[in-house]
Amino acid sequence: GILGVITKLILQIIPRPETSRTILAIFETLEDTSQAVSDIIGAGIIPGALELMDKTTCRAIEEGLHAGYPVDAEGVLLIEVEGLIEGLDRQVKDIADICRKNKVRELRIAKTPAEQAKLWEGRRGAFGAIARINPHYLVMDGTVPRTKLVTALHKVGEVAAKYKLTISNVAHAGDGNLHPLIMADADLPNGKELTKKAGEEILDICFDLGGTITGEHGIGIEKLEAMRHAFSPADLAAMRRVKMVFDASDILNPGKLLPPETGSTQPAGSEVSP
Amino acid sequence: GILGVITKLILQIIPRPETSRTILAIFETLEDTSQAVSDIIGAGIIPGALELMDKTTCRAIEEGLHAGYPVDAEGVLLIEVEGLIEGLDRQVKDIADICRKNKVRELRIAKTPAEQAKLWEGRRGAFGAIARINPHYLVMDGTVPRTKLVTALHKVGEVAAKYKLTISNVAHAGDGNLHPLIMADADLPNGKELTKKAGEEILDICFDLGGTITGEHGIGIEKLEAMRHAFSPADLAAMRRVKMVFDASDILNPGKLLPPETGSTQPAGSEVSP
Repeated sequence: GILGVITKLILQIIPRPETSRTILAIFETLEDTSQAVSDIIGAGIIPGALELMDKTTCRAIEEGLHAGYPVDAEGVLLIEVEGLIEGLDRQVKDIADICRKNKVRELRIAKTPAEQAKLWEGRRGAFGAIARINPHYLVMDGTVPRTKLVTALHKVGEVAAKYKLTISNVAHAGDGNLHPLIMADADLPNGKELTKKAGEEILDICFDLGGTITGEHGIGIEKLEAMRHAFSPADLAAMRRVKMVFDASDILNPGKLLPPETGSTQPAGSEVSP
Repeated sequence: GILGVITKLILQIIPRPETSRTILAIFETLEDTSQAVSDIIGAGIIPGALELMDKTTCRAIEEGLHAGYPVDAEGVLLIEVEGLIEGLDRQVKDIADICRKNKVRELRIAKTPAEQAKLWEGRRGAFGAIARINPHYLVMDGTVPRTKLVTALHKVGEVAAKYKLTISNVAHAGDGNLHPLIMADADLPNGKELTKKAGEEILDICFDLGGTITGEHGIGIEKLEAMRHAFSPADLAAMRRVKMVFDASDILNPGKLLPPETGSTQPAGSEVSP
């Protein structure tokens, strides 16, 4: 790690939920899709999964996997609730009511484990389906407050237009965690660089909306420059001094997490896939 | 705080549970009481409250409050489960089964909110009831793994015998969090000091059983010496250096949390009540 060496791990095992229900909700607009997310969380429902996919993603899934996802809807939510059998059907009903209030076009509630698996097949295969269209894509990872989901997705669309790039959106919407997949134009000599710049702008957007520059994948070396956007030089200096306490010779993960002190503009690494 | 100044707090509001059930379980031995705690947690049940009281505490409660607590049982558990109405009765049944398996003498399951309030009256009034017997008591706060509860309570008993002090036990047993109330002998010139020494031994016991020297009340100045038991000089030096990063002139809560560097034996503060 950045500050130490792990010598022992103690894991807390969480009991497997007794059962689960899966819903695919199909919306005409991203506004309705996002508002449904806000309303579900606002109602005190904590789904085990609340995944948002936009039209570009759904089309890629349909083309590659024929999982029955719509190709003409602006947004879909894949929602899973889990726990004790008692009360779960009521949660499904509450979620369905919230989706209807937000003008859902179609609700598919899986009736069997096989139907659940079928609905998940699309989401699980999304990244592979995108790679089938364009293997040169960069996955971003940032968060926004859930109430800012629709603003964030629109701004991601503006970045796509500005750089003339296709960006498909998958989001752990229940956590406000965006995963835009930025498809590089491999024919351009600077295609990789443009993709990277678009990604950095998206992280800045997330941060400026009150979010963070990583939801779950960390900073590594790819996001060193975004750290300068998110933290002041004084913040970064304090973090460097904390690292020095535990690692005075900078041998633990050198060059990661904290950008170089001088504010030098050395190029950060990139993780364009594959 | 120790490392900074709070300028803004963002609170997460957790929805109030729909309903709750309260159980008083009365046991003949501390072993049975503690094993019931382990088994409840082991069954994947997470009660909202799982409070243990020993005979000394129950007697004080009964003497002061007449709340209907037993005066001859070695241990009682006050258990509250909460959440959706659906499934809650099953949790109560599962808990009752676990208590019976551990030779519970009596189970009282509140049937109305008034009966729930009555059961809680005893626990809520426990500290006051102790103060009625002896206002000069020191509340300790340490944790042990839940599987070590009975060992810890026996060792607390040994400390009581060694110092010829009465110690009554209240515990947030579901969290492994002990709150022994050490009653000082105010007639002795060194009564306060003996109480403090007994408290320090109890913290060492908690730590040596794989627990911590504070569950929820923090270190402050009272537990500076216990910090030396729990952490090596190198650990403490690293913590001091981290504090220096944010507070080079040591103006934030000076003298708290971290014992003086020299290993000097200056007397730590005490919080004998009232």
